[in-house]
Amino acid sequence: MELVTLADIRTAAGRIAGHAVRTPLLPLRGVGTPAGVWLKPECLQPVGSFKIRGAVNAVAALSVEGRARGVVGSSSGNHAQALAYAAAEHGVPAVIVMPDTSPAGKVAATEALGAEVVIVAPPERDVRAAQLAVERGLALVPPFDHPEVIAGQGTVGLEIAAEMPAVRTVLVPASGGGLVSGVATAVKALTPHARVVAVEPELAADLAESFARGERVAWETERTYRTIADGLRTPAVGVLPWAHIRERVDAVLTVGEDTIRAAMRLLATRARLVAEPSGAVALAALLEHPGFAGEGPTVVVVSGGNVEPALLAEVLAAPAALAHG
Amino acid sequence: MELVTLADIRTAAGRIAGHAVRTPLLPLRGVGTPAGVWLKPECLQPVGSFKIRGAVNAVAALSVEGRARGVVGSSSGNHAQALAYAAAEHGVPAVIVMPDTSPAGKVAATEALGAEVVIVAPPERDVRAAQLAVERGLALVPPFDHPEVIAGQGTVGLEIAAEMPAVRTVLVPASGGGLVSGVATAVKALTPHARVVAVEPELAADLAESFARGERVAWETERTYRTIADGLRTPAVGVLPWAHIRERVDAVLTVGEDTIRAAMRLLATRARLVAEPSGAVALAALLEHPGFAGEGPTVVVVSGGNVEPALLAEVLAAPAALAHG
Repeated sequence: MELVTLADIRTAAGRIAGHAVRTPLLPLRGVGTPAGVWLKPECLQPVGSFKIRGAVNAVAALSVEGRARGVVGSSSGNHAQALAYAAAEHGVPAVIVMPDTSPAGKVAATEALGAEVVIVAPPERDVRAAQLAVERGLALVPPFDHPEVIAGQGTVGLEIAAEMPAVRTVLVPASGGGLVSGVATAVKALTPHARVVAVEPELAADLAESFARGERVAWETERTYRTIADGLRTPAVGVLPWAHIRERVDAVLTVGEDTIRAAMRLLATRARLVAEPSGAVALAALLEHPGFAGEGPTVVVVSGGNVEPALLAEVLAAPAALAHG
Repeated sequence: MELVTLADIRTAAGRIAGHAVRTPLLPLRGVGTPAGVWLKPECLQPVGSFKIRGAVNAVAALSVEGRARGVVGSSSGNHAQALAYAAAEHGVPAVIVMPDTSPAGKVAATEALGAEVVIVAPPERDVRAAQLAVERGLALVPPFDHPEVIAGQGTVGLEIAAEMPAVRTVLVPASGGGLVSGVATAVKALTPHARVVAVEPELAADLAESFARGERVAWETERTYRTIADGLRTPAVGVLPWAHIRERVDAVLTVGEDTIRAAMRLLATRARLVAEPSGAVALAALLEHPGFAGEGPTVVVVSGGNVEPALLAEVLAAPAALAHG
């Protein structure tokens, strides 16, 4: 299997310029790592997550004919809006297949971006998207198992390495594995002394198990759906991401649900960032494994910020020992 | 009275590099201005507000002898932590005079930054700071009425003009007036076609009244303390800021309390930014005066994000018609 290269990520960086925000590194004090912690706030992207990077790269990589026909993707979450946004930015028609369990607000937001939304029963999602691709000649843009998507997400790592060449540890949320695959590709190529660490909830720890066993395993969705981190419930990393992860990722850490909430609260009160639970897991890893980021600067990717206001309010109102001060 | 120049602001930009974050411009969709709205998120600065810029510039401008002696400032709010932070970054001793009404958390945070905190009765605040300056040979760094502070805040405008030369309207929260003075100086020098607009709460509209009358007026603190925007309760703009504002600011807009809350909610849900009430007033102006930003791109300065978690939770939980969607 051919892996994404640094050159692919550099190409993606040129394509996303002007569409995705080049997010700054924000210093975070007081989490007890002597050499410093910086946040990479991808929650500040136009549709609230890093997904915009991969989606824009995939759309921009299409031929003239491909752009005229359009794209299709299936998602109930951040990928839906990212693909709709990317297509709209390039004047490309987009069809998004969403499960009938999607919140009305997410459907409306996707339609507001100009996409055609097709509602189906959850198990039919991916099949329907593939059908539409064939029937209408649309380019299928999956959320993570795709080289252009991985290359696009890799621009996060390119920016980290460029801004902080001394970085020693990079913590990245993982589910389908597109983000951590891309980040590891760029970081390992540019700053080989740095460790790249994937983070996932204990309750959806299929990647930690895969990593320990040395083979890709899937968890039942009844298990992964227990976590509050709704963006990280994918039952298994993608096939292409797994090939990158086993080669380029140094470790996998897991975090508990209370720590995820504490990290969300810390991000809101100390970094003034709204993070969704999935976006807060990498910081949660630093709270739960304080000795881990021992030497050198640590960068924590805050991957997204699309959280229900009521949940954020609940997290802010609740006393959370880890997040005080 | 000698006004701050573009050259002063360029000097400040060199001094703050590496201490303050160069905040990105974040596109904000759906607020109904055809040419687009961008946020300048100063809430992402290390101590949660733009104040870090002026404080770092003032500390960095000291002589070697001045640095050895140290600085003093009086503040119950963001300036206290910004000055303490700036002093610590330069290895300069800092004394912060705080009123005995300050929340314990703010006192602790200022001390945690290494500053000596002197607690006094509120009316004695400025006098005590001036005394300490004389007694101990400390350099007094006031929150806004100071050329180096204005020049430091002006780097916000420098960055806006550099990143978006086509900018047509810049909306800036105003109270003491240091920020809007500096921003107007840079923006008018670099992009003279752009309007710079100061925004304040209706309940603390001393600047709007001053602007209308053509002379600097003060409001009683019993009046200004009615607003939720606790960073904008200064009874009058400073003398030096006023000289800049009358010369370089195009208009003053006022906003209601409900709109400030709606803007806070919108920032959290659509831009994933935690803003304090004072930090949200410039966006509130766009919500309350939708026709105002007619032509060309609009930049909204989100000046700070130090809000009590309970207040943010309340704003998120409350239905706010303007912020829905």
